[in-house]
Amino acid sequence: MNTFIYNTPTKVFLGPDTEKEVGKIIKEYGYKKVLLHYGGGSIKKTGLYDRVVKSLEEAGLDFVEMGGVSPNPKVSLVRETVALCQKEKVDLILAVGGGSVIDSAKAVGVSAISNIDPWEFSMGRVKPTQTIPVGVILTISASGSEMSDSCVLTDEETMIKKGFNTDVIRPLFAIMNPMLTYSVSPYQTACGTTDIMMHTFERYFTHDQGFEITDNISLALLKTVYQAGKVVMKNPNDYNARANLMWASSLSHNGLTGVGRNYKMVVHALGHAVSGTYDFVHHAAGLSILFPAWAKLAYHSAVDKFAEVAYQVLEVDRSIAPKEAALLGIERLENYFKELGMPTRFSDLGIGTDQFELMANKYSNNGQNAITTIITVDKAKALEIFNLAK
Amino acid sequence: MNTFIYNTPTKVFLGPDTEKEVGKIIKEYGYKKVLLHYGGGSIKKTGLYDRVVKSLEEAGLDFVEMGGVSPNPKVSLVRETVALCQKEKVDLILAVGGGSVIDSAKAVGVSAISNIDPWEFSMGRVKPTQTIPVGVILTISASGSEMSDSCVLTDEETMIKKGFNTDVIRPLFAIMNPMLTYSVSPYQTACGTTDIMMHTFERYFTHDQGFEITDNISLALLKTVYQAGKVVMKNPNDYNARANLMWASSLSHNGLTGVGRNYKMVVHALGHAVSGTYDFVHHAAGLSILFPAWAKLAYHSAVDKFAEVAYQVLEVDRSIAPKEAALLGIERLENYFKELGMPTRFSDLGIGTDQFELMANKYSNNGQNAITTIITVDKAKALEIFNLAK
Repeated sequence: MNTFIYNTPTKVFLGPDTEKEVGKIIKEYGYKKVLLHYGGGSIKKTGLYDRVVKSLEEAGLDFVEMGGVSPNPKVSLVRETVALCQKEKVDLILAVGGGSVIDSAKAVGVSAISNIDPWEFSMGRVKPTQTIPVGVILTISASGSEMSDSCVLTDEETMIKKGFNTDVIRPLFAIMNPMLTYSVSPYQTACGTTDIMMHTFERYFTHDQGFEITDNISLALLKTVYQAGKVVMKNPNDYNARANLMWASSLSHNGLTGVGRNYKMVVHALGHAVSGTYDFVHHAAGLSILFPAWAKLAYHSAVDKFAEVAYQVLEVDRSIAPKEAALLGIERLENYFKELGMPTRFSDLGIGTDQFELMANKYSNNGQNAITTIITVDKAKALEIFNLAK
Repeated sequence: MNTFIYNTPTKVFLGPDTEKEVGKIIKEYGYKKVLLHYGGGSIKKTGLYDRVVKSLEEAGLDFVEMGGVSPNPKVSLVRETVALCQKEKVDLILAVGGGSVIDSAKAVGVSAISNIDPWEFSMGRVKPTQTIPVGVILTISASGSEMSDSCVLTDEETMIKKGFNTDVIRPLFAIMNPMLTYSVSPYQTACGTTDIMMHTFERYFTHDQGFEITDNISLALLKTVYQAGKVVMKNPNDYNARANLMWASSLSHNGLTGVGRNYKMVVHALGHAVSGTYDFVHHAAGLSILFPAWAKLAYHSAVDKFAEVAYQVLEVDRSIAPKEAALLGIERLENYFKELGMPTRFSDLGIGTDQFELMANKYSNNGQNAITTIITVDKAKALEIFNLAK
C-alpha cells in the first residue's frame, strides 16, 4: 500500500428539508455576505430558490446572486462572478446545483480572494493557497464535487477544458436533501449513477496490494450504488435509494476510496478524448461506452479484483470460477448500463469509426503518452478499446 | 434512515516515517509553541520521543512537555497540564500515544483556552465552544480517539469516569505510522482489535432501515479488521495488516459507520458497569465477554443483520439459512475472541456472580433506566446477559 494523506473537511448535513437550514448554518460560521451561485434557473421552477432566499433572509444575511452556470462551466462567467464578489465584498459563496455550479463556485473562490485570473489555476501556472469559502446545496448525485478537491473549467474561446486539484477548494459545507433529486430526469439520474460507479472503479483497479480496507469499502459503495440505481429508475421518489446515491456520490470522490492506492483515471482520460471530439457526448455516456471495452482488455491482469466485483456487486454466484465470473461480471455491468438507459457502444450515439484515429491521438498526445494502471493504454491500445466499443 | 451531520475535519497522514514530518506539518499550520503530551514513557524507550523532538527542533518550533498520562486519564493531570499550557502560551497540543493521551490532550485543549475546569465539561455542565488545536501521533490502533469527537476523563478522588462529545475536540491532524504499533503487546493488540470491531458492531445493530450504504461500509470494515486481526497475532510486524487496523480504528469511530442511524452503545454501557465494579477489567475485555451474550439474546430481533455479519465477515457459507448462520456467526465470533486471547466469560477473569446484582443496578440506575436498540436491555435483561456470560 502507499502512504497517503486524507483530508475531508467538508461538513455534511443530509436529510429532508436541510436546505431550509442554510441561513442558520452560514450565520453560525459567522459569514455575512453571500453570493448565491446557480445554473439555468431550474431552481426557480422547483421552488428551491425561494426556500434558500427565505432562509438567508430569516438569518439576516445579505446576498447577491449570479445564475447562468452552464454544463462544462465557462471561465468567462467565472470572471464575471469574481468581479461581482470583489465589488460586493462577498465572504461566502453558496453553490446551489450540481458539479458544474460547484466547480464554478470553487474557481470564483480562489480567484476572487487572490485577484488572480481563474484560468491561471486551471492551466496549472499558479497553485491556489486560499479561497473564499464555498458552501453547497446539492441538487444532483453525480460529480462528487461537493466534497472533492477538484475543479474543471472550460475556456469557450479555445474550447480547452482543464482542471486542477487542491485541498484548498474542498467545500466548507454541503447540504444534501435527497428529495431535491426526485426531479432529476431518468437520463441524468442514470448518468449520475454511472459517474459515481466510475469514480470508484477507476480507483479500485490498481495493482496495489495489501490495503484491503480500501478495496472492501469500494466494493461496499459499488454494491450500494448498483442496487440503488435500479430502484430510482423504477421509482424516482424513493427517498432511501436517492439518499444512498447522494451519500455515495460524495464518498466515491472525496478520497475515501483512493487512500493507499496509486490510481490513475485512465477511462476518464479516454472519455475526455471522446467528449473533446464530440461535444454532445455526456461525460458519463463516454464512460459507459468505454469502461466495458477497457475491462474486456484489462481483466486478465486483475482477475481476482474483477471477480470480487462480480460476486459482491453484480450478483454472480461464487460457485463460478474467478475468470469466468470476471467476464460474466463485465457482461452484467454492460447490461446494467443498458437497463439504466446509458449507451454502451459508439453506434448507440450514431458515432462511427472515422474519428477514432483523431481521438487516439488526442488521448495519447499523438502517441507520445500512455497511462498504466493494471494494463498500459497507449495509442494502439486506445484504438483497440475504441474498436471494441464501436 | 435518519437525518445526519457528518464532520471529520481531522487531516490524516498514514505511512512509514510520517512521525518525522510532524515539525514540518505543525509549522505549515503556523503554530509556534507546542505542548508534547505523552504517557508512561514507552515512547522514550522506543526512540519515538527522540524522533519527535528532533523533528520539532528542525522545524524551529519551541516546545514544553508533560508526560505521565495514565490509562483512564486523570483530571488532576489535565489540570496540571492546563496550567503549564497557559503559563507557556502553548498554541498546539501534540498527543503522542493512544486513546488516553489523546483524550487527556482534548480536555487540556478546551480547558486551557477557556480557563474552565476540565471536570465541568466532563460533567456536562459547560459545553466547549473552542479549543487549542490538538495534533496526534498515534501509537496504538484501538480507541479511534484520533478522529473522534469524544473525550473520557476519570476523577480519581471520586473514581467517577465521565465523557463528553463535541465536534470542537476532533483533532486537527493525526499522524499514523503503522510500524509504531509493531511493539504493542499481543494482549493490547487483541484488545484494540476487539475495540475497533465493537465500535462498528454497536452502530450496526439498529432497526434503522434503508440506508444500505452505512451497513455495507460497516460490514466492509468488520471484514477487514477480522482478517487483519488474525494476521497481526501471528506476525506483529506485518505492515499491511497493521495499516489496515490503524485506518479501521479511525473510520470505525469517526462517524462514518454511524451516519443515518439512531444507535446507542448498549454493550459499552454494560461494560462500564463491569469495569466500574472491577477496576482491573480492560474496556475491551468487558466487551468481548458481554457482546456474545448480548448477541445470543438479541439475534432473534435482527436475524438478517446477524446473518450478513456471519456470511460477509465470519466466513459462514451462504448455503446455511439466515437464522442458523446468525447463531453460527456468534459462535465463530466468540471463538475468534478466544483465539485473539480475549476473555469471553467472567470466569476467565476469575469473576463470580456475586456482584451481578450490583452491576445490573449500576447499569440501570437501580432499575430505573433501560437502553433500547434491537432489543431493550433493562435491569432484568442485564442480569440475564451477565448470567449467560458467567
